[in-house]
Amino acid sequence: MPFSHHFCSNTLLSAVQYCSADAHEGMVPVCSNTAFRQTEGAVSNPEKLKNLYELVEPAFKVLDFHHPHQLKEGLEGFSLDLPDQPETLEQLLVDCRDTLKYGVSTGHPRFFNQLSSGLDVIGVAGEWLTSTANTNMFTYEVSPVFLLIEEVLLKKMRSIVGWADDEGDGLFCPGGTISNLYSILLARYHFYPEVKTRGMGALPRLAMFTSEHSHYSVKKSAAVLGIGTENVVVVKCDERGKIIPAALETSIATAKEKGLVPFYVNATAGTTVYGAFDPLNAIADICHSHTLWMHVDAAWGGGLLMSDRHRMKLQGIERACSVTWNPHKMMGVPLQCSAILVKKRGLLQECNKLGAQYLFQMDKPYDVSYDTGDKSIQCGRHVDVFKLWLMWKAKGSDGFGSQVNKCLENAEYLYDQLQKRTEFELVFKNKPEHSNVCFWYIPPSLRSLPPGSDRDRRLHQVAPRIKGRMMEKGSVLIGYQPLGTKVNFFRCVFSNPATQQEDIDFLLDEICKLGADL
Amino acid sequence: MPFSHHFCSNTLLSAVQYCSADAHEGMVPVCSNTAFRQTEGAVSNPEKLKNLYELVEPAFKVLDFHHPHQLKEGLEGFSLDLPDQPETLEQLLVDCRDTLKYGVSTGHPRFFNQLSSGLDVIGVAGEWLTSTANTNMFTYEVSPVFLLIEEVLLKKMRSIVGWADDEGDGLFCPGGTISNLYSILLARYHFYPEVKTRGMGALPRLAMFTSEHSHYSVKKSAAVLGIGTENVVVVKCDERGKIIPAALETSIATAKEKGLVPFYVNATAGTTVYGAFDPLNAIADICHSHTLWMHVDAAWGGGLLMSDRHRMKLQGIERACSVTWNPHKMMGVPLQCSAILVKKRGLLQECNKLGAQYLFQMDKPYDVSYDTGDKSIQCGRHVDVFKLWLMWKAKGSDGFGSQVNKCLENAEYLYDQLQKRTEFELVFKNKPEHSNVCFWYIPPSLRSLPPGSDRDRRLHQVAPRIKGRMMEKGSVLIGYQPLGTKVNFFRCVFSNPATQQEDIDFLLDEICKLGADL
Repeated sequence: MPFSHHFCSNTLLSAVQYCSADAHEGMVPVCSNTAFRQTEGAVSNPEKLKNLYELVEPAFKVLDFHHPHQLKEGLEGFSLDLPDQPETLEQLLVDCRDTLKYGVSTGHPRFFNQLSSGLDVIGVAGEWLTSTANTNMFTYEVSPVFLLIEEVLLKKMRSIVGWADDEGDGLFCPGGTISNLYSILLARYHFYPEVKTRGMGALPRLAMFTSEHSHYSVKKSAAVLGIGTENVVVVKCDERGKIIPAALETSIATAKEKGLVPFYVNATAGTTVYGAFDPLNAIADICHSHTLWMHVDAAWGGGLLMSDRHRMKLQGIERACSVTWNPHKMMGVPLQCSAILVKKRGLLQECNKLGAQYLFQMDKPYDVSYDTGDKSIQCGRHVDVFKLWLMWKAKGSDGFGSQVNKCLENAEYLYDQLQKRTEFELVFKNKPEHSNVCFWYIPPSLRSLPPGSDRDRRLHQVAPRIKGRMMEKGSVLIGYQPLGTKVNFFRCVFSNPATQQEDIDFLLDEICKLGADL
Repeated sequence: MPFSHHFCSNTLLSAVQYCSADAHEGMVPVCSNTAFRQTEGAVSNPEKLKNLYELVEPAFKVLDFHHPHQLKEGLEGFSLDLPDQPETLEQLLVDCRDTLKYGVSTGHPRFFNQLSSGLDVIGVAGEWLTSTANTNMFTYEVSPVFLLIEEVLLKKMRSIVGWADDEGDGLFCPGGTISNLYSILLARYHFYPEVKTRGMGALPRLAMFTSEHSHYSVKKSAAVLGIGTENVVVVKCDERGKIIPAALETSIATAKEKGLVPFYVNATAGTTVYGAFDPLNAIADICHSHTLWMHVDAAWGGGLLMSDRHRMKLQGIERACSVTWNPHKMMGVPLQCSAILVKKRGLLQECNKLGAQYLFQMDKPYDVSYDTGDKSIQCGRHVDVFKLWLMWKAKGSDGFGSQVNKCLENAEYLYDQLQKRTEFELVFKNKPEHSNVCFWYIPPSLRSLPPGSDRDRRLHQVAPRIKGRMMEKGSVLIGYQPLGTKVNFFRCVFSNPATQQEDIDFLLDEICKLGADL
């Protein structure tokens, strides 16, 4: 058996064995829901599984923070410099350990800082195999299995979105921003195919629409694509962060009056900060009546499609022309894993193909329709599909569903706790729709202050100061930001199924401890 | 020690131990040049190192080809389908083995099909650690070490290009096409900063220039950016594939006469098929006199900068405004690893920043200039730097130089053999400048035919037919393509330092065997 086969089988086995510890008796797919901690439902005998992280060290830190200048000066012999001559193997091992030591444990059950978190062991094993295979996604000749896996995954994801079997196409992209960029690129080409050869100069002044709570990638893509950020109309949202359909209607009318040509609407299923779901059916109606491309940015919310309990929050997504869905967020797949799904078959290829002869020869000895590399903007494309496929095998669709449910239960638990505890204030009152929970910590000194600009000014400084202390201590990590007129607040998100209620209690207690004197 | 630390130290150790076999006595950095085979100079006692690939199996295949429909139908129980319920661990292991079995061994010393090949064990260990760290490149807060590593690498690469210490910026991007796209995006913004807000509609009709042998990513980017492919002027090359400076001058003049506004020239250092180096100083003179942005696409040729023997082939690169350089090609770093280097500091940030408050808060407790995420088009960005950094530690700059030299010696050896053997014809007579060697195999039935369209027509079918047989047999893999008026020819490229002269002899013998009856 060739080298690489041994390499990877051993890898998977050791990853799994390492992580499943002494729980091997049943030979069940023990790691399907494993992050640092085993979670319920992952195995038939979950009580036999240890908390892996505690197995190794009970009171580990999420991070061991150092300032840039400290790391650059060299800590305990950790040097970032690039030598002319080789270092020894011992030194390389020290370099590896130090890199991890001074990094951040994003798989830690108390890491709440980003939409991507956790560390699924099967996913990691999949990524390791991918690295070992070290190939590119452009042609069937060098990636036969991975290209077929991509096809199978995309087809499955489209069917979950609700498109017919004979509809659709797609690609895995380097992140949600690039997936969103594809959607605009495709929409533009769909309405104005001459843009490919003649450029934007041949087109009328286009307008596109997205909500004030949507991801900044929509504007960024407009800049990149030569549409211009001022031609991105930002539509008002309600208190909960959902786009207001009537405001969208008005924005479209206003743009038309100004002589712009509307062509694209981005709806968000799971906004970055609030986790809000735009009313997709209402937006689809508007897009239909104005003949606009409807894109759904479900980078964060797409995972909810895997859950019978929560998928109704994306009702209407089946009416979209394109969908961004990042399994590396809510589905816990290791970074990076983001898909752009497109309803109109053939459009990706038409829009992007250039037919480079050194890659895409028509006289190859196999069906060259499997050489999908000309569909993409990129030439070489990283293999992001195998880890998702392997996790799907390990969990089944149902496993992903349970994992999503678990994360949303955590969000509800946090929401309940925040309502009960007087030290905290919710940013919006409604029960969370996604796993985002936004709140302020009100330190004792501010509790008796009346609402107003003085309180706001002081409250604005609270979250950054607590965050600073949190980073120094390294016990837990959560993000904060202002939004609109709201001063700095914490945003907690759950995408790591290893997080337990005790971790959430710990987070709140820790914020209170760190902020008590503010 | 936290879980992930154990995880990775063990991983690196086992990768290294596995690959260095019984050669541990000296505890030298045994794997710095390891691919499947150990190469000379990698260790102080190279004679003690076995050929690893042969250790495992002497006559292994490069690939075990099956057509798409065969793999989709399920071979010996290999199913691509995604289940609702979990599979067993045993089945997952079978899935992993089958994925590798039906894939292509791009690290095989007889894989000559792509510019990226080999399998550097330290690089793979670096990628494994990266997967385990599972983080994003946007903020210092979640990627402190990786962001500093990126800074150190980019600074080193810029100094190797020849820029002053206080000059320059850069990013690692998902592949050379995206790096090239950045160069055009930056050039456009540099001359017309209003494009970011107002779009291409506010600009004159731009023109950009690239050679007929350059990579198709230049045209593709022009389509994406809204410039349009017809505004990309394709400049003639000489017989050797180098751009003709006088032709570039003429093309610029012609474009101006037509009312277009030239702004950007792409020069290639190492073309995809011929491995040609454009005359950079002559192009820099032209760009200077017309005030054009000069980009050097050194995705493939950049590696030669690491070699004292070969770096003079890129003379003039220090005059470029931007450079694409893919360590995942000639430097043998696992996919993906591509850098865009920019001379003008601050431009990346200005061009791409949008200042999303949920990521890039200004009131963070550290120096937020290290939050480089707003420089990129992407939001989340994969960590592509650690493996390169670790390999640099393991080899030193000198080790990369030796590796490049070895690959170019292989190309010269192939060139010499082709000149000696009457069954082959070179596509161009000159000694290779890079590791590309282009040639025809002339089967016995064609050897007596006079040059002309009949011979060309038949010769055109030879390479595809041999390639088909080669894939079925799986013994070796090499690419072919037509180019301009030249009918299908083989292109051999060397980027795997594990390839030996016997592998090259094998390639030529195998082509003769497979094509003898054509």
